[in-house]
Amino acid sequence: MDVKDYIRTIPDFPAKGVMFRDVTTVLQDAQGFRLAIDQLQKLVEDIDFDVIVGIESRGFLFGTPIAYNLNKAFVPVRKKGKLPFNTIEQEYSLEYGNAVIEMHSDAIKPGQRVVIIDDLIATGGTVKAAAQLVERLGGSVEKAVFLIELPFFKGRELLSGYNVGSVVQFDGE
Amino acid sequence: MDVKDYIRTIPDFPAKGVMFRDVTTVLQDAQGFRLAIDQLQKLVEDIDFDVIVGIESRGFLFGTPIAYNLNKAFVPVRKKGKLPFNTIEQEYSLEYGNAVIEMHSDAIKPGQRVVIIDDLIATGGTVKAAAQLVERLGGSVEKAVFLIELPFFKGRELLSGYNVGSVVQFDGE
Repeated sequence: MDVKDYIRTIPDFPAKGVMFRDVTTVLQDAQGFRLAIDQLQKLVEDIDFDVIVGIESRGFLFGTPIAYNLNKAFVPVRKKGKLPFNTIEQEYSLEYGNAVIEMHSDAIKPGQRVVIIDDLIATGGTVKAAAQLVERLGGSVEKAVFLIELPFFKGRELLSGYNVGSVVQFDGE
Repeated sequence: MDVKDYIRTIPDFPAKGVMFRDVTTVLQDAQGFRLAIDQLQKLVEDIDFDVIVGIESRGFLFGTPIAYNLNKAFVPVRKKGKLPFNTIEQEYSLEYGNAVIEMHSDAIKPGQRVVIIDDLIATGGTVKAAAQLVERLGGSVEKAVFLIELPFFKGRELLSGYNVGSVVQFDGE
């Protein structure tokens, strides 16, 4: 089986007309989960980097096993108000409105090389905001990788200039 | 260094009088993160089980690396409204109010043996609710493990009858 075969599609979630790609069916199968992590990890194995930044909360699911496997640090990007220490924040626009994400102000040290991981890229708005947080702290984004890419939403255009990779692509919306 | 040395304590978060134990300083140090995962994993290595259930969202950070390492499935427990498929829900009382958590109704198959992982146990309310969700789906909770335990809040009393383990304990509140 391919990683794609483990992904469940749920029509009209969280809004009418959206085909939601559900990764919980990947995770809840030990073989599917292993396959997904292995293939995602392959996309960053040749990259020279120090830190994985994972985006709340599905980015946590895929980012931490790879951080552990490759002996890297892990930094969470979270929605506003969730992180307990001093933070820097970045606003961005989503398909369904606006939002603010935050990172601890001491999470990235100047000069650190970063890989960003999330479960899915659509418009790329959240990832772009996460990359801006990394750069504002003096880090560099070496690559951004995703289990799923929805090319229809042109995330690679918003992320032009960044090195982007994905394991599985779904055409159309 | 011990895992405890990597944990940052933040007074008065999220409410006055609370000493918040911040695990992001563990994660953002590659050595600290490795040590934390290795020690947490040791608590379940002798357990015969199929699935790790991780509680949103810090349970995701520690649960998925261990699921990957031990070749297990991973099932997320999330706050109400976050999971896209059919769910079952469980209400519980928190230190700061009431809440509802959910699990996909097909996440655990009858007879599956489960380990629950979260970053911290205080009163144990969330874990107890997660255990109830597992049991309602026909699974059995073989052990519940936590990076941090706050014995002051007597979580082990609420979880009496369950096998509970933790890596680091903080006395007092």
